[in-house]
Amino acid sequence: MTPISDLGEFALIRRLTDALPIRNASTVKGVGDDCAVLKYNGSNVLTTTDMLLEGVHFDLVYTPLKHLGYKAAAVNISDILACGGTPRQLLVSVAVDRRISVESLDELYAGLRLCCDHYGADLVGGDTSSSLTGLTLSLTALGEAADEEVVYRSGAKENDLICVSGNLGAAYLGLQLLEREKRVFAGTKQSDETAAQPDFSGYEYLLERFLKPEPRADILQRLREADVHPTAMIDISDGLSSELLHICRESGCGCRIYEERLPIDYQTAKCAEEFNLNVSTCALNGGEDYELLFTVPLSSHERIQEIDDVRIIGHITRPDLGTRLITRGEADEVELKAQGWKL
Amino acid sequence: MTPISDLGEFALIRRLTDALPIRNASTVKGVGDDCAVLKYNGSNVLTTTDMLLEGVHFDLVYTPLKHLGYKAAAVNISDILACGGTPRQLLVSVAVDRRISVESLDELYAGLRLCCDHYGADLVGGDTSSSLTGLTLSLTALGEAADEEVVYRSGAKENDLICVSGNLGAAYLGLQLLEREKRVFAGTKQSDETAAQPDFSGYEYLLERFLKPEPRADILQRLREADVHPTAMIDISDGLSSELLHICRESGCGCRIYEERLPIDYQTAKCAEEFNLNVSTCALNGGEDYELLFTVPLSSHERIQEIDDVRIIGHITRPDLGTRLITRGEADEVELKAQGWKL
Repeated sequence: MTPISDLGEFALIRRLTDALPIRNASTVKGVGDDCAVLKYNGSNVLTTTDMLLEGVHFDLVYTPLKHLGYKAAAVNISDILACGGTPRQLLVSVAVDRRISVESLDELYAGLRLCCDHYGADLVGGDTSSSLTGLTLSLTALGEAADEEVVYRSGAKENDLICVSGNLGAAYLGLQLLEREKRVFAGTKQSDETAAQPDFSGYEYLLERFLKPEPRADILQRLREADVHPTAMIDISDGLSSELLHICRESGCGCRIYEERLPIDYQTAKCAEEFNLNVSTCALNGGEDYELLFTVPLSSHERIQEIDDVRIIGHITRPDLGTRLITRGEADEVELKAQGWKL
Repeated sequence: MTPISDLGEFALIRRLTDALPIRNASTVKGVGDDCAVLKYNGSNVLTTTDMLLEGVHFDLVYTPLKHLGYKAAAVNISDILACGGTPRQLLVSVAVDRRISVESLDELYAGLRLCCDHYGADLVGGDTSSSLTGLTLSLTALGEAADEEVVYRSGAKENDLICVSGNLGAAYLGLQLLEREKRVFAGTKQSDETAAQPDFSGYEYLLERFLKPEPRADILQRLREADVHPTAMIDISDGLSSELLHICRESGCGCRIYEERLPIDYQTAKCAEEFNLNVSTCALNGGEDYELLFTVPLSSHERIQEIDDVRIIGHITRPDLGTRLITRGEADEVELKAQGWKL
């Protein structure tokens, strides 16, 4: 018997979903992108699903339930946006064990409702069940896109510019801060608890990035206003490297990105130093940023430069030139690497 | 803090989803039926989701993974059918712990594929993740229905006939058989294992009903052919009583069903006797039958009687007449009761 760890997540998915037949005319795009794309009566319906398990995807020791609800909705909405869609509906399944009270679920749903409110989605259904061990959430989002708005991972072309919204690595460092405080707290005697109140001052932004990610509907809006049409797009949930490799793989191309162009917030840089971590590694592999990574034709260069909070970090190349990171300083080229199993 | 058990599943759902706003024109029907109903470009898109947890919804001691995959897809497809739709797409999320091998997942997906094949649905996406404790599945199905095909729980009218497909209680007794063999096996010494090989002979149908339920697409087809339009419909996952109470509640009506009309297979009756269980209770509250429960206008009486494998079990009444079961023998009336928390 082969342990799953021998394959890794992406090889496992390829194996399980290999040669899946498509029987219905309404199925336009199946497995392999941020969303499945369906066509009902000429309307593009995008759909995506995500499961979140306690102890794997979140830790209730430092995750307020309202934030968890918000984030669970946000990560699904982010996938709809990554395919160029407008989020419309959300289904939410929750499995709870005995520790979870009705009031805790009220909090979770308050977060879900807030996120739906913010992004204009309707909570239309779900499933509630008991669990033997911990809280499990599973969400499905549906969205809509006009034909010219749908973007896949597979459309990047040679010489396209590689762009990223916002900044990277902040959520990862937010998680490191929370994990550190958890360890400190666990090592503290009961009588010292007041003394052990966590101090995150100066790093509030990092915590917010981890606990309450905001999918970039605003960026999609600005791209539309500027008449810029991404050729490929993906949201950054597993880290920039991993996502860019998906685009290159699906588009059959190579890439070249520049370490010095990676957008990094001041707090991220400061905190990485404190943890003795390479900030570029945090930005490349941190994950959970929920920023948009996309490619645009070279002809959109000027229009992209005028869009606030979007940075060009490199360009798409021929496939035989590989997937490369040009490092700072020595201007060395290294191979881009992705982490294996998703957080 | 209020324990969830104080509320029960249905009251909890009502509390969590109370006064949910509908913002999008594409949302036709939100929480409260077997599916949410969306309208994209004039096309009715039905969607439903279900989460299945090891130790709560299934036991890997006696559930082959291929069967589990089939059943997980089937229960979602059953919800699409219960709203009058044709299943089109399926999203599958799986969380696995270290015990699960790649080959086991192959088996699970073989079952999923087989069910998709059988019901003409496309597997279009999902999510794969690790789990600390056990196997968790979450599925979302999408389907399509013409305007005149969409059926809600809420359309039953006074004097409508109450109909049920197939027979009831078999899956529940299949589960009792498997649980009994598990207990026997657990009490057996290693050396006696061969002697303890389970003997299910004569009860194969009951096991099949539990392990491999078949959603009733055939019944929908026959209803269409006979030009019978159900006024309300639901699939029987939690037991006939519970589902009929949903229809009465949503339709604002009462009902009267007859114990002697309950469709029960010979194996079910025989096995209930062996377990010293009241077979009518098994049929009323057993659950997991995945048969269709529906109401039709009195004018469809003759046409319904000609449809194979459908039985009229009673009729809809004014709400003030209550929800009643007319028992066999003394022809006593008793109040219909539903079980609380879902299996």
